[in-house]
Amino acid sequence: MSGFVSFVSSGPGDPELLTVKAVKRLEAADAVLFDDLSSGPILSHAREDADLVGVGKRAGRPSPKQDHVSRLLVDYARSGLNVVRLKSGDSGVFGRLEEEMTALRDAGIKFEIVPGVTAASAAAAAANIPLTRRLTARRLQYITGHDVTGGLPDNLNMAALADADATTVVYMGKRTFAGLSEKLMEAGLPESTPALVALGVSTPEQSLHRHTVGELPRLLREMETTAPVLILYGPLAEPDLPGA
Amino acid sequence: MSGFVSFVSSGPGDPELLTVKAVKRLEAADAVLFDDLSSGPILSHAREDADLVGVGKRAGRPSPKQDHVSRLLVDYARSGLNVVRLKSGDSGVFGRLEEEMTALRDAGIKFEIVPGVTAASAAAAAANIPLTRRLTARRLQYITGHDVTGGLPDNLNMAALADADATTVVYMGKRTFAGLSEKLMEAGLPESTPALVALGVSTPEQSLHRHTVGELPRLLREMETTAPVLILYGPLAEPDLPGA
Repeated sequence: MSGFVSFVSSGPGDPELLTVKAVKRLEAADAVLFDDLSSGPILSHAREDADLVGVGKRAGRPSPKQDHVSRLLVDYARSGLNVVRLKSGDSGVFGRLEEEMTALRDAGIKFEIVPGVTAASAAAAAANIPLTRRLTARRLQYITGHDVTGGLPDNLNMAALADADATTVVYMGKRTFAGLSEKLMEAGLPESTPALVALGVSTPEQSLHRHTVGELPRLLREMETTAPVLILYGPLAEPDLPGA
Repeated sequence: MSGFVSFVSSGPGDPELLTVKAVKRLEAADAVLFDDLSSGPILSHAREDADLVGVGKRAGRPSPKQDHVSRLLVDYARSGLNVVRLKSGDSGVFGRLEEEMTALRDAGIKFEIVPGVTAASAAAAAANIPLTRRLTARRLQYITGHDVTGGLPDNLNMAALADADATTVVYMGKRTFAGLSEKLMEAGLPESTPALVALGVSTPEQSLHRHTVGELPRLLREMETTAPVLILYGPLAEPDLPGA
């Protein structure tokens, strides 16, 4: 008797940004393994008798080891349960899906991935801007602001990132953006390039701040927040920032 | 009396990949302006007495002029209606949101954007692969395969696109990928780079094909389909392609 794991993308935080499929999977789950970021009202879709297991990894706080999470997932599924592994945003985008998928595959447990709304899409929507523009932002790129060591990833493709004709989205970049912005400007990105900082996208704590790439490091230094920080820069459309 | 426009992202096609918010907006709409790609079962969420207006633009078929769509949108909203402008995928990603937003702003009509699941997220989920990998695919980028003339966009950033350490997603690239792949290989991308072609993602017609960047042009030439084609290449995880 072997269970089934559904990797369910919970979207950026607003329970209304769950997909219909995600709601159905939550309602049918015997157990839900969730990260801190995707908890709260979203979990209310789970049955009252479902096991809710927090396995949160959050920047700046100690977190369970990844292989512990994978083991837990395998154990729950092996006991024949219908398991939802909830991941914030779209689980395929910086969701560290691969380690857990590999563990399941090695254990012979079937799984599916339910895609979701990325924080980037939600941030742009909240700011009333498109992520791409027909003539000036034909390329859209996502990077993460830190690697496993917590520092800026090495081997950054600066020709890609310093391109003023692309929209760039930096996930988890609060602590490392000062270093990145220096590299960007060295590589030729104008410091006047428009930037948007989005905190707690789609949650009640959401706030949006419009700046330039050059000004951003000072702003981020002064910003005291525990909310997830998303940074966008590039030829953003004329914004209309409801939360600013 | 001025109405309201909700730009609602309908996701890749599967009605279960609508967000809860998108369903609510459809249920509340007096009028729904939709593209071909996002029609079908998704529209069944609209009220029976709602106006359903097709304004489809689809590759290879003549389509209403963009300013005609914008004018229609303004006219519907001006008559005091609650209007949903349905756009496939995430409306902020190659959704040509800007022209319509600008028209509404000029007309003094309020609007919101409801983000959605991109076809890229859905394609990767269907193929059981993550879009990013912790060590080998830290950057994710989206481009469109054609510009307004139907040809490959000019001024492509080849250092960005020929990067074997990024996952690249090409929207609407069926007709132009042969030209792109030549440029990619000239710029140093190995022709053995894994690629995934996804047709009709998340619809009953979905099919997934795994190839390499070098093989892809021949495959695309032989492929007869009217379904939307999405091309992904880069260090994709070991795939498990249910639709292949």
